Amino acid sequence: MSEKIKRPRPRLPRGFRDVGGEDLVARYEMIDRIRKVYERYGFAPLQTPTVEFAEMLGKFIQETGLPEEGVFSFRGDQPEWLALRYDLTAPLSRYVAQHRELPKPFRRYQVGSAFRIEKPGPGRFREFVQFDIDTVGSARMAADAEICCILCDAFEELGLAGKFTVRVGNRRVLNGVLEAAGVDTEPGSGATTATRVMRCIDKFDRLGMEGIVKLLRQGRMDDSGDFTEGAGLTNAQANVVVEYLNAARKSRKDVCEALRGIAGESQEGNRGVRELVEIDEFLTAAGYDESRVVFDPTVVRGLTYYTGPVFEASLLQSDSGGQYSMSIAGGGRYDNLVERFTGQKVPATGASIGIDRLVDVLKVHGQLGQKSAAGPQVLVTQMDEKLANEYVKWTFELRRAGICAELYLGRGNIGKQLKYADQRGIPLALIAGEDELEHDAVSIKDLRRGKEVASKMAERSEWLKHEQSQQTVPRSEMAERIAGLLAGHSGL
Amino acid sequence: MSEKIKRPRPRLPRGFRDVGGEDLVARYEMIDRIRKVYERYGFAPLQTPTVEFAEMLGKFIQETGLPEEGVFSFRGDQPEWLALRYDLTAPLSRYVAQHRELPKPFRRYQVGSAFRIEKPGPGRFREFVQFDIDTVGSARMAADAEICCILCDAFEELGLAGKFTVRVGNRRVLNGVLEAAGVDTEPGSGATTATRVMRCIDKFDRLGMEGIVKLLRQGRMDDSGDFTEGAGLTNAQANVVVEYLNAARKSRKDVCEALRGIAGESQEGNRGVRELVEIDEFLTAAGYDESRVVFDPTVVRGLTYYTGPVFEASLLQSDSGGQYSMSIAGGGRYDNLVERFTGQKVPATGASIGIDRLVDVLKVHGQLGQKSAAGPQVLVTQMDEKLANEYVKWTFELRRAGICAELYLGRGNIGKQLKYADQRGIPLALIAGEDELEHDAVSIKDLRRGKEVASKMAERSEWLKHEQSQQTVPRSEMAERIAGLLAGHSGL
Repeated sequence: MSEKIKRPRPRLPRGFRDVGGEDLVARYEMIDRIRKVYERYGFAPLQTPTVEFAEMLGKFIQETGLPEEGVFSFRGDQPEWLALRYDLTAPLSRYVAQHRELPKPFRRYQVGSAFRIEKPGPGRFREFVQFDIDTVGSARMAADAEICCILCDAFEELGLAGKFTVRVGNRRVLNGVLEAAGVDTEPGSGATTATRVMRCIDKFDRLGMEGIVKLLRQGRMDDSGDFTEGAGLTNAQANVVVEYLNAARKSRKDVCEALRGIAGESQEGNRGVRELVEIDEFLTAAGYDESRVVFDPTVVRGLTYYTGPVFEASLLQSDSGGQYSMSIAGGGRYDNLVERFTGQKVPATGASIGIDRLVDVLKVHGQLGQKSAAGPQVLVTQMDEKLANEYVKWTFELRRAGICAELYLGRGNIGKQLKYADQRGIPLALIAGEDELEHDAVSIKDLRRGKEVASKMAERSEWLKHEQSQQTVPRSEMAERIAGLLAGHSGL
Repeated sequence: MSEKIKRPRPRLPRGFRDVGGEDLVARYEMIDRIRKVYERYGFAPLQTPTVEFAEMLGKFIQETGLPEEGVFSFRGDQPEWLALRYDLTAPLSRYVAQHRELPKPFRRYQVGSAFRIEKPGPGRFREFVQFDIDTVGSARMAADAEICCILCDAFEELGLAGKFTVRVGNRRVLNGVLEAAGVDTEPGSGATTATRVMRCIDKFDRLGMEGIVKLLRQGRMDDSGDFTEGAGLTNAQANVVVEYLNAARKSRKDVCEALRGIAGESQEGNRGVRELVEIDEFLTAAGYDESRVVFDPTVVRGLTYYTGPVFEASLLQSDSGGQYSMSIAGGGRYDNLVERFTGQKVPATGASIGIDRLVDVLKVHGQLGQKSAAGPQVLVTQMDEKLANEYVKWTFELRRAGICAELYLGRGNIGKQLKYADQRGIPLALIAGEDELEHDAVSIKDLRRGKEVASKMAERSEWLKHEQSQQTVPRSEMAERIAGLLAGHSGL
C-alpha cells in the first residue's frame, strides 16, 4: 500500500486546462480564417518567445527588484528574473525597440498564449490565447480606424455579421473633461484619480449608470454586501462624467458634436474629438457605417497604457435589441510603450482578439465545427488476425484515395471494435473475414444507421442477424463505394 | 543622464528568439501540411497547457522536493512547484492517466513549444516547437509501424521525397544482447551500465565505430583534449556490442536474421527481433520499402523511458551517397509512462518532429516559401493629403477584390513611401494625385521593374522623368489591371 502513496494523482494546476477535439479544431479553423483577414490588410506574422526578462514586460516593481504579482516569474540559470508574457503587446514593444532598423510603420500580427495569475472563473484561464494585430510607427488616426475595420472583417469572416459592434472611445476626451473639472490627471507613482475614474467606467456594461455614479463618488456595495471604494469625485465632478457618459448617440457625427460641447475649452478634450472625427471620416470612406462601428464614451479600457482612441468589440445579445453581452476583442493607441526602452516616442495602435472566449461564442452561435469535423471516416476492423496484412493494405489504399481511414490497433472482438468506432464518432466500418476474402469482397457497415449496441453482441453470427445497415461490395470498388457513402449517397 | 541609466536595454534571455517573416510563414505552412497527414491517419488534436505541476512531468527530485535542473520551474500562488513542459509526451501521459474514460487506443497529435535549460547552440533553443503524434493503449507493433509510415508521409508532403530515411531500432534486442553478455541491465536508482551503453551508441552518427568502441570501454578524448568517461565494458562485452552495431544490412529481413544470430538464447533479445519482424511485415504490406524505412541497430535514442522499438528520421546529405546528416524526428515505444500515475500498464508509442530544425532544412532544400509569400501585394500611396478618403476607398476596393493591399500609414513624400514598399518587398504601388483624379485614373508602378533608389528623388516631377515602369489606367479598371500584373501578365 505504501507504493500507492507515492503515485502522483494526475491533475492540472488551477486555471489551466486541456483543450481537445472539436474545440481545438474550431480554434485552428478560427485562427486560420482570422490570419487570412490580417494578411489581406498587409500584416505579417511575428512570434516572440513565451519567456521574456521580467524587466522587459514592464510589470516590474522597481523598489524591490521583484516582478509584480500577477505575473508568473522565475529564474533559469541566469541571475535576472524571467517571466511568462502576460500579453503580446509588451513583447512587441521590446521587439520594436530592439530592432530599430525595421521599416516603419511596422505592421505585425501574432497569435499565442499569454499567462496571468488571476482568479480563474468561467471562461477565465491562467493561460489564454490572444490574437493581436498592431501598427507601430504611425500616429495617423487612419491606423486606428483600420484596426476597427480589420476587427469587423475578422468577425464577419467567422460568420458573425450583424451580431457584433466595434465600439470606439477616446481617452483624450475623457482626460480633457476630467482636467476641466479639476480632477487630478497627471501620471504619478500610484493610480491617479483619473485612472480610478477610468476603472469605474470600464465596469459600465456590468453595473449601469446608477452603479457607476456610486463608484465615482464614495463607493458601492454589491449584492453580496462587499463594499468597493469609490474614486472620490465631488458631486459636481461626477455630474460632468455622467454628462460625458450620456453623450452616446446613434450617429458617430452626433457623438462628436455632443463631446465637443462637453470638452469645452479643454485642449486635450478637443484634440480627442478631432481624432474621433478623423476616424469617422476614414470609416465612412471605407464603407463601415454605424451598423458595425459606433462611438461610445463608456468605452475606456482598463489598462493604463492607452493614450488615445480605445476599442472594444462586443457581441450583441441575441435575445435583446442591443445590449452588449460579451467583450470579444479590445485595444487602443499606446504611444509610450516603446519609449520606455529607447527614449524616443514611437506611436502605436492595435487590438487583441480573445480566442478562447470567441470559440465558446461561436459554438453557441453554431458558426464553427460543421465543416471541420476532423476525425477518421472509416475504421478498418481486424476480424481475423491471419488477414492483418490485408487490413493494412486496404487502410493505406483508402488513405491514398484521400479518405481518412483508421486501422483498429487495439485488441478485441468485432463488437468491441465497433463500439470504439461509435465512441470516436467514426461513421463507417470496413469488415472482412475469410468469407469476404474468398469472394474478393469487403463489407461496409454504416454506423450512423445501425444504432444497436454492438458491444453486447460478441459473436459475429449473432451480430449479423441483427444487422441491416451493412453491404458487401467487390474489393475493387471499396474506395469508390466508401467515398460515395461519405458524400451522402445512400447506396445501402 | 541619470534618466538614461534607468532605461532597460531591449533584449532576450539566452536561448530564446523571435521568429518572423518568411520563417514563420514557412512554419505555419509546414504545420498545416503535417496536420493534414496526421488527420488522414485518424489522429485528433489535443492541446495541453504550457504549465504543469513539476511532479506531473516526472522531473522531480523526491528526496529534496525540488524540481530537477534542466526544467524551468517556479511557483504561482500555490505551494506546489510548477514547470514549463520539457516535451509533449509527459503531459500526454498525465492527460491519459487523468481521463481513464478515453476510448483506447487513444490517438492524438499535438504541436507546441517545449522548454529546456540547455546549453544553446546553432539550431538549439531553450524554447522549441515539437509536433508529436502518439498512439496510447495499443501494444501492437502495427501501432509502431504506422508511426513510421506517418513520418514518411509527412516528409513527402513537405517535398522531401527521396531525401530522408526513417531508421528503426529496438531496445529489447540490445538489452537482450547486453544481458547475454553479462552487462547490468536492471533499472536502479542511477544510470545502469546498459543506459550508459545506449547513450554511447546514440552518438554513433557523430563519432563512428572507432569512437564508440572507446566510449564503450574506458573513455574517449576528443579533438579539444576533453575526456569523456566510458561505459566501462570489458573487451569481450564491447565486442558483442560492436557485432550488434555491425548487424546493419540493406534489407530489413536480413537485419532481423543477423540480429537473431546475435541475440542467441536471450528471451528479451528474441522478443525484440520478433517485434521487428512484425513491423517489417506491416511496412511491406503498406508499401513502405527500404528506400524509406530501414532497420538500423545503431538507433537506440538517448531517453531512458523507451521500452521497445525506437525511431529516428534523418535527412540524407545531398552530397554523399547515404550519410545521415541531421535528425529531424525521433520517437519510440514507452509502455511505462502512464503506469507512473495509475499503476496500470498502458502501452504507448509515438514520435516527435522537430519543427524549428525542419524549417531550416526546408529552406536549404528550397521546399518552402515560394507559394507562401505572405505580405502585401500593393501599397496604396498617399500623394496628396486632401485625397486621403479616396485612397481609403481604393484600398478597401482592392481588398474586396481579394488583393492584399496596404494603405501607407506613415508620413513622408512619395520617395519615402516607395522606399518603404521596397523594404517590405511589396511589388506594386498605386499612385494618384489631382491630375489622375481629374482624369478618373490611377497610376500603377511596378517596383519589381524599376530598381532605382526612389528615396533619393523627393520631387515627384523629377522622379517621373526617370520612370518607365509605370502606367496610368482608368480608375474603373484598377483592380483588374493590378490582378493581371500580379498574375504575371506584363501589361506594361
